[in-house]
Amino acid sequence: MIVVMRPNCSQYEIASVVKRITELGLKEHISTGTEYTIIGAVGKVTADHRYILQLLPGVEDVLPVSKPYKLASREFHPENTEVKVNGITIGGNELVIMAGPCTVESEQQVLEIAREVKANGATVLRGGAFKPRTSPYDFRGLGEEGLKLLAKAREETGLPIITEVMTPGDVELVSRYADILQIGARNMQNFPLLDEVGKTRKPAMLKRGLSSTIQEWLLAAEYILAQGNEQLILCERGIRTFETSTRNTMDISAIPIIKKMSHLPIIADPSHATGKWYLVSPLGLAAVAAGADGLMIEVHPKPDQALADGPQSLTFDTFRQLMSQLKILAQAMNRPLASNNVEVES
Amino acid sequence: MIVVMRPNCSQYEIASVVKRITELGLKEHISTGTEYTIIGAVGKVTADHRYILQLLPGVEDVLPVSKPYKLASREFHPENTEVKVNGITIGGNELVIMAGPCTVESEQQVLEIAREVKANGATVLRGGAFKPRTSPYDFRGLGEEGLKLLAKAREETGLPIITEVMTPGDVELVSRYADILQIGARNMQNFPLLDEVGKTRKPAMLKRGLSSTIQEWLLAAEYILAQGNEQLILCERGIRTFETSTRNTMDISAIPIIKKMSHLPIIADPSHATGKWYLVSPLGLAAVAAGADGLMIEVHPKPDQALADGPQSLTFDTFRQLMSQLKILAQAMNRPLASNNVEVES
Amino acid sequence: MIVVMRPNCSQYEIASVVKRITELGLKEHISTGTEYTIIGAVGKVTADHRYILQLLPGVEDVLPVSKPYKLASREFHPENTEVKVNGITIGGNELVIMAGPCTVESEQQVLEIAREVKANGATVLRGGAFKPRTSPYDFRGLGEEGLKLLAKAREETGLPIITEVMTPGDVELVSRYADILQIGARNMQNFPLLDEVGKTRKPAMLKRGLSSTIQEWLLAAEYILAQGNEQLILCERGIRTFETSTRNTMDISAIPIIKKMSHLPIIADPSHATGKWYLVSPLGLAAVAAGADGLMIEVHPKPDQALADGPQSLTFDTFRQLMSQLKILAQAMNRPLASNNVEVES
Amino acid sequence: MIVVMRPNCSQYEIASVVKRITELGLKEHISTGTEYTIIGAVGKVTADHRYILQLLPGVEDVLPVSKPYKLASREFHPENTEVKVNGITIGGNELVIMAGPCTVESEQQVLEIAREVKANGATVLRGGAFKPRTSPYDFRGLGEEGLKLLAKAREETGLPIITEVMTPGDVELVSRYADILQIGARNMQNFPLLDEVGKTRKPAMLKRGLSSTIQEWLLAAEYILAQGNEQLILCERGIRTFETSTRNTMDISAIPIIKKMSHLPIIADPSHATGKWYLVSPLGLAAVAAGADGLMIEVHPKPDQALADGPQSLTFDTFRQLMSQLKILAQAMNRPLASNNVEVES
Repeated sequence: MIVVMRPNCSQYEIASVVKRITELGLKEHISTGTEYTIIGAVGKVTADHRYILQLLPGVEDVLPVSKPYKLASREFHPENTEVKVNGITIGGNELVIMAGPCTVESEQQVLEIAREVKANGATVLRGGAFKPRTSPYDFRGLGEEGLKLLAKAREETGLPIITEVMTPGDVELVSRYADILQIGARNMQNFPLLDEVGKTRKPAMLKRGLSSTIQEWLLAAEYILAQGNEQLILCERGIRTFETSTRNTMDISAIPIIKKMSHLPIIADPSHATGKWYLVSPLGLAAVAAGADGLMIEVHPKPDQALADGPQSLTFDTFRQLMSQLKILAQAMNRPLASNNVEVES
Repeated sequence: MIVVMRPNCSQYEIASVVKRITELGLKEHISTGTEYTIIGAVGKVTADHRYILQLLPGVEDVLPVSKPYKLASREFHPENTEVKVNGITIGGNELVIMAGPCTVESEQQVLEIAREVKANGATVLRGGAFKPRTSPYDFRGLGEEGLKLLAKAREETGLPIITEVMTPGDVELVSRYADILQIGARNMQNFPLLDEVGKTRKPAMLKRGLSSTIQEWLLAAEYILAQGNEQLILCERGIRTFETSTRNTMDISAIPIIKKMSHLPIIADPSHATGKWYLVSPLGLAAVAAGADGLMIEVHPKPDQALADGPQSLTFDTFRQLMSQLKILAQAMNRPLASNNVEVES
Repeated sequence: MIVVMRPNCSQYEIASVVKRITELGLKEHISTGTEYTIIGAVGKVTADHRYILQLLPGVEDVLPVSKPYKLASREFHPENTEVKVNGITIGGNELVIMAGPCTVESEQQVLEIAREVKANGATVLRGGAFKPRTSPYDFRGLGEEGLKLLAKAREETGLPIITEVMTPGDVELVSRYADILQIGARNMQNFPLLDEVGKTRKPAMLKRGLSSTIQEWLLAAEYILAQGNEQLILCERGIRTFETSTRNTMDISAIPIIKKMSHLPIIADPSHATGKWYLVSPLGLAAVAAGADGLMIEVHPKPDQALADGPQSLTFDTFRQLMSQLKILAQAMNRPLASNNVEVES
Repeated sequence: MIVVMRPNCSQYEIASVVKRITELGLKEHISTGTEYTIIGAVGKVTADHRYILQLLPGVEDVLPVSKPYKLASREFHPENTEVKVNGITIGGNELVIMAGPCTVESEQQVLEIAREVKANGATVLRGGAFKPRTSPYDFRGLGEEGLKLLAKAREETGLPIITEVMTPGDVELVSRYADILQIGARNMQNFPLLDEVGKTRKPAMLKRGLSSTIQEWLLAAEYILAQGNEQLILCERGIRTFETSTRNTMDISAIPIIKKMSHLPIIADPSHATGKWYLVSPLGLAAVAAGADGLMIEVHPKPDQALADGPQSLTFDTFRQLMSQLKILAQAMNRPLASNNVEVES
């Protein structure tokens, strides 16, 4: 942390800042220039420390130097984290495709989709049982009944399942069924939920909040890591901007930035990012070209009859086309698609 | 809901849209122009309906007509809602000032601040016991101990207290101490929390999420109202934009828009919106001039020693100055400050 | 400028940075901490310098210390700048109201409006002759014919006129008629235009670009000041955000920030900021409460027949109401409305 | 255009709206529902028409149906536009790589870079002679001298050149040297400049403004097309958002959206979009995977000595790596890189 003093500050003000730095348990380093005096503050610095120093008389600005997250940083953990789920590795060299319906609607629907996405190369089955909905009048999911249907689909296809948990009180319940716990964009800063998921040893996927900076996202990841759960995946799903042609703006630059700043795997969700099915394939391919470890894709046999988010769902046909394009791209990128018949082989 | 058909759509496509509208339990109205055929769909329309129709062949666009919230709308409830707390009315003609520390730190701190803000005209005491923090390494509040200290301050000063509840599991606990339950910006779309607060009959204050549109905010309010809790206050506290001079950008236009669209009272929080103490007074005055029903202000005797958010706290001196400016402005606006000695009088 | 070196950088890298700083004509100050080595670079620093140092091996980050603008800064010019136009002072204690039609449509229209706004206390007449329009198919203004009509209205009412100039080639022409040259939001970074307006000695008003930070805005002002034109006014007119209820989001916090950072007067334009007539009065009052030096308001006798921007125009009735509210507020703020009969008295 | 009347509107209000629609030269279609009456207005509709109707008594909302741009739309011109420059086709099946320095600095610099980028497969040489700079104190380019150096590089290498024109008065001058006129992001709504470029028959490239919606961008393109210049290319270069890790957020979804809405070719500029050299390659690859017709890349032999924008420039080494990755990706996408030895062959 660097404290920049005002050009005309007094010696007394400098001394007071140094005193406060010492009281906070930090060590100071003074550098006197012709215009500005600069005081470094070294040690275990928190955001609160920064706020405190900012208010002292004579202080022009306080600039953070070190990053506020640690366990999530590439410096702390130089090797890529690989998350293992039922024999599948997320964050390794192979690309992982998570696919399935937005919302679990019925046994027939989830089984039909599970079989289809597996046949086309998906390695994880997605499906919502607890759905966050902007309006209280929209369908909120089947709850535990939906979890049971997902488990049935896993039993039949061998695909591990990822599903959302919305509140700390449900973590135990959802963990009983899910292979990967998903934390949705709206809950990225639901800190009691992050703590609770951090206390489990279940693999988890943390979606980026739609107005969250990359730094805030990594700090949310830090909550989970700090509780001891290291099986963590990140998921870019678009941020909120002024553009109205898409539901959100997919921030593809977040993918290489996360790869540089952190060791955690990163998945891209073009379905939620764009909100429009005809953008899902081009954005999915773009995310893989930019270095994503995999994709999460919504698929529905009849999107115009889906109970939620139909407009962003691929049909079986368009999903098949995406998968065949992905295979070619994956080869060109030297990152083959993960195989999905692990269970069958064993 | 209006379905706009593509200029070159077929009669069969039009018939299919009409069929689907009927299946959804809605009624259709066809209007054939020279260029576009337009089909109205009338009835209890949901977002899901809109999504479904959007995907049908021949459909160019689906435009919503009616607002998706009902209980929160001015049409449904033309009179202003007045929230009553310990003899104070929020949303009436008088302005209500909520003031206090960002975070409850100690008995002495909260009592000293409570006396001071009361002496200067505040009508509600604010203070955080459960604190959402971006980093897991920052101070997260005293928890129930903090609630007890707030209750003590209420006992002594007679000021009702407002404090944040972060998770559904804490609603019962916080309700035992608080007079008004605060739902923070990060939890605006924490739907299980909204449901739980909606089930109580405690007055509640719902802060706007920092990337929430006004419509999403009113839909979040609808969650609480739909559970039967009508004692609801809204609070504008800034939205996230590209500007970095302020922590957030206070959207003052939200105040008159809420007044037009809804019957709910609206409070402004310039402390969190700006993040800088020297902007709190001008923005607080601006919010009142734009029609806010009151303000929420952070006050700390020594902001540079506060455990959280010092840079945005007013000192006792600057708070006193703000209150004397507010008195003059309130008079000019014909909206006097609410008296705070209700308890004493009774 | 502060160069933060990587924790593990070599002595050779430090020496290279110091060498480069010297080559750039700056002076270095090294401060060696236990974790980070920090190198200050003092002198006439530019953004390019910062970019260059950022790329040297071993450099973690380069942090700017001093502000990139100088002539626009409060430090350089501690007193408020007062812009004088035909006996009216903008940036003094009195509030200045600029009002008139969005677009000059006809002699009758502009004269009728000029008389009406003068009668209600406006001190400057606004009106567009050259109009930037998003679509090439919308009405682009009367051009020089419009300037002549504005001059006629000035002749009759004595009100000085402000009107937009869109391109360097028109500066001479518009200067012949206008008392204040307006640079619109879309042209805030039209640098050849800024240079050209800077070369005149006409008072000018620079609107904030709708995606410009306050710092970029002050740098655009610096372009004009650097050419020697010190008669400069700033105008906040809303920034682009995700919110769709208003055309733009009026950033009222920009007003006190500009007052702190700069000596230039600041006007607020709630008509363009909100795009809705019923928000103009509350936002106009809010801007004045936050410390604006005046307002710019669109007025039209029949907004539903205006050739442009009718929805944000006040009628004669609503303008009269706003002015009477402003008078009360101005008195409470101790900043009376400027008188508009200067010409008549002389 | 659809006029939605208020649920409780009167017959008189409906009649007035119909009358006004007729006066505007449009034709009306009334559709009376149980809740809402809807009035379609068909004909040559402008934004001003919409504003006018919005203000009439009894009107709830006015919804646009048809797109406001025409010449730029895919409906008007179903085939892809192909822009031909010196034997190179932009917008055809082959990918076009434009590369070169941000700013032309010297004869040696531009020649060295031109040779190098050509040797690695670039098909167009980029370089700035007139530079828009945020601060008046930064280097603004060599002007005409820079144009001459670019022309020399074209002479030697045969690469056509693209360079920016900033103001209408310079269009004639820049056209004398450039093969493609570039309109920068800050000038996307510099309407006099658009008109002037539209009057030439030079190929032009219009960058997206950093706070422009896709619709506004297509309307800016419409300005140029409406003047008769059909040799137009679009360029996505990032939009302004709250994220601060990158200079702007590259909106990759804009690429497939432009392909759907318009017939114009689209190029991506990952150098300006990200502002960081290590993000240029992943974002460049992503843009191609999403369907871009080509890339614009900044290259400099010694970025830490560049006069502008060094941090986003690739070195010769990193450019070579990008080009070899692009070759593989281009093959996988079935869109080979355009050859650059056209001149040599002829």
